[in-house]
Amino acid sequence: MQYIEGGVTAPQGYFATGVACGLKKNGDRDLAIICSEDVAATAGVFTTNKVKGHSLKLTMQRVRDNGYATAILINSGNANACVGDKGDADAREIASKAAELLDCRTDEVLVASTGVIGVPLEIEKVLAGVEEAVNGMTADGGHEAELAIMTTDTAPKEVAVELEIQGERVVIGGMAKGSGMIHPNMATMIAVLTTDANISKKLLDKALREVCATTFNRVSIDGETSVCDMTIIFANGLADNAGIVKEDASYRLFCETLEKVCLYLTKKIAADGEGATKLIEVQVNGARNADDAYKVCASVATSPLVKTAVNGCDANWGRIITAVGYSGAEIDPSRIDVAINKIRVCRSGSAAIYDEDKVKEQLEKDEVTITVQLNYGDFSDRIWTCDYSEEYVRINGSYRT
Amino acid sequence: MQYIEGGVTAPQGYFATGVACGLKKNGDRDLAIICSEDVAATAGVFTTNKVKGHSLKLTMQRVRDNGYATAILINSGNANACVGDKGDADAREIASKAAELLDCRTDEVLVASTGVIGVPLEIEKVLAGVEEAVNGMTADGGHEAELAIMTTDTAPKEVAVELEIQGERVVIGGMAKGSGMIHPNMATMIAVLTTDANISKKLLDKALREVCATTFNRVSIDGETSVCDMTIIFANGLADNAGIVKEDASYRLFCETLEKVCLYLTKKIAADGEGATKLIEVQVNGARNADDAYKVCASVATSPLVKTAVNGCDANWGRIITAVGYSGAEIDPSRIDVAINKIRVCRSGSAAIYDEDKVKEQLEKDEVTITVQLNYGDFSDRIWTCDYSEEYVRINGSYRT
Repeated sequence: MQYIEGGVTAPQGYFATGVACGLKKNGDRDLAIICSEDVAATAGVFTTNKVKGHSLKLTMQRVRDNGYATAILINSGNANACVGDKGDADAREIASKAAELLDCRTDEVLVASTGVIGVPLEIEKVLAGVEEAVNGMTADGGHEAELAIMTTDTAPKEVAVELEIQGERVVIGGMAKGSGMIHPNMATMIAVLTTDANISKKLLDKALREVCATTFNRVSIDGETSVCDMTIIFANGLADNAGIVKEDASYRLFCETLEKVCLYLTKKIAADGEGATKLIEVQVNGARNADDAYKVCASVATSPLVKTAVNGCDANWGRIITAVGYSGAEIDPSRIDVAINKIRVCRSGSAAIYDEDKVKEQLEKDEVTITVQLNYGDFSDRIWTCDYSEEYVRINGSYRT
Repeated sequence: MQYIEGGVTAPQGYFATGVACGLKKNGDRDLAIICSEDVAATAGVFTTNKVKGHSLKLTMQRVRDNGYATAILINSGNANACVGDKGDADAREIASKAAELLDCRTDEVLVASTGVIGVPLEIEKVLAGVEEAVNGMTADGGHEAELAIMTTDTAPKEVAVELEIQGERVVIGGMAKGSGMIHPNMATMIAVLTTDANISKKLLDKALREVCATTFNRVSIDGETSVCDMTIIFANGLADNAGIVKEDASYRLFCETLEKVCLYLTKKIAADGEGATKLIEVQVNGARNADDAYKVCASVATSPLVKTAVNGCDANWGRIITAVGYSGAEIDPSRIDVAINKIRVCRSGSAAIYDEDKVKEQLEKDEVTITVQLNYGDFSDRIWTCDYSEEYVRINGSYRT
């Protein structure tokens, strides 16, 4: 496997673009299309929030009931959520308009929205945008599509890799957006993955679920989960490999590679958390069971006090062990070790002997790994997050205005 | 019942003061004593964090095993937590030293600590401070004691009330500290309550537990729970009322009044959250059960996106309904109403018709109430919290330095 140039249009048979239909007040691109030449197998992972956006609900239903798709339309600037029946009608209308122009079945078109909640879509603008997008999409338009789904993101997040499966060159591409309001699982995050691999719908779904569990569902910016978030994958089979139809070596290779693609995007999302200056990886080892490993990870990764301490390059491990203590996991405080970028700062629940300046030097890096060793069992987990800066508050105090 | 001047020394028979023993680098007061003339019945509510400070552990044990106390010594500037055996020995030594000077049993002296975790106490300084405190305490020294327990607090938090019980004038006084790192239950919060009421140890304990459940355990600043936090009450009986020994009208009056005292301190703590500009009350009604009502309250009250929106006076109710959605409570999104200071902004899960300027006017006030009506059952709950400001990050990025 190796990384190559490009994003969602890197695999064979995908067209994309992003246009400005007028939802973003500053005139930036706000409507993306990604379209497959042939109808593609599709799978999705969706927000666990009980409140769900109208666009997301339609896509959930179509992925579940149909499982094949030709295109996805994604608008930013408006979440199309909590606006009543008009929201459902708007989602269907966007898909119908695109299906008409693409000459495909309407249930083969998916939709997604991200932005402000509770404000009805200006549907006429979006429909005009759909026409422009369909007419303008190209075989190397992946980057424009990515630009059109960004909200508070400061940098685009795209990746593509190639590998050989069953003797054929297969490509997987991906793009993502999302910086604030991200927590397991899937919050204000939209990711679209494309591949030309020939893989069964069932295994595509299984692969996506497995991979999301250790990547997109392990990123947390502020402990929030949104109502619109999803990861969608398309597999159009144009690579002409014989077909991944059982859980064999080819399937595992596909999964491993998909995981790398998603991990790459996951880290980009975490590092681009609103106002973030650093990527933080929280690694927990030695938990009694998987659930406890996750609880400790989540507790440390969402602690505002830990996140502000990292922002201030302060080796305040007391806040880390405090977050471990209130995580709800079964622990023995006197067995806990904590390390920051491999320098042990807490040993058996008490201060370790360490050089404060050396730890500060590590905290000043762009990537900080906090390792918590519970010494209580054999389970591990990890989460990616970012520090909390004054900028985070500034961005979020006036998001709508 | 009426409010009167003073704090913990307002009831009869209490002496207190606060001295500077050298733990706070800036030379401020950092060691408080509160002492009862006669040995008092005592009760306590303690942090639920699995990691517990050494001072707190000793006090928990003495309250449980003994249930009577003469004095409490509280230091700020150092949490006496996560420092191993020396931490336990230091806690015992502070109590022993005070007991010797006060000529009382050592297990009648309680201790508490708040401040940085993982740094051993400079015990010689504290012991010298204990001597100075015992020698300096006065019958109106409650305010000095309060000053000595403050850390990042910007204002002292004290209250006293008088009432008549069984024909006698009874006084309840209280003081508290704590601004950051406060979440149900009891995080980096220390409260000391004093009364001259004559009440049985058993009922004093019951009253404190009941009252804490709806007051101190319903305040959240940043979702954190600390390792050192406690509420302690002393009742020395000097009011000479006949005695509260069963759950009668006198007991209920005592509870109601104690609740008012604690609620006053609770709101002061919430409003003084680190960097806070506003007190936020989250009121949830119509939940399926008590647990769901609490979950929704806690989810909204700890949402960084809700807290930054309130800071920015932005009526972004989409973030409120999003937090309701991921709370884990059983809800029906289409039944939810949301109001900000009684102005309905969301009706049946969709945008209500409201005047954006009028809501903004409400959000600019010092106190903002967010009401979530779930219309799903009969249970209610409420939590007090504060907004998130850029100042919060500034304070917490460099707390230790």
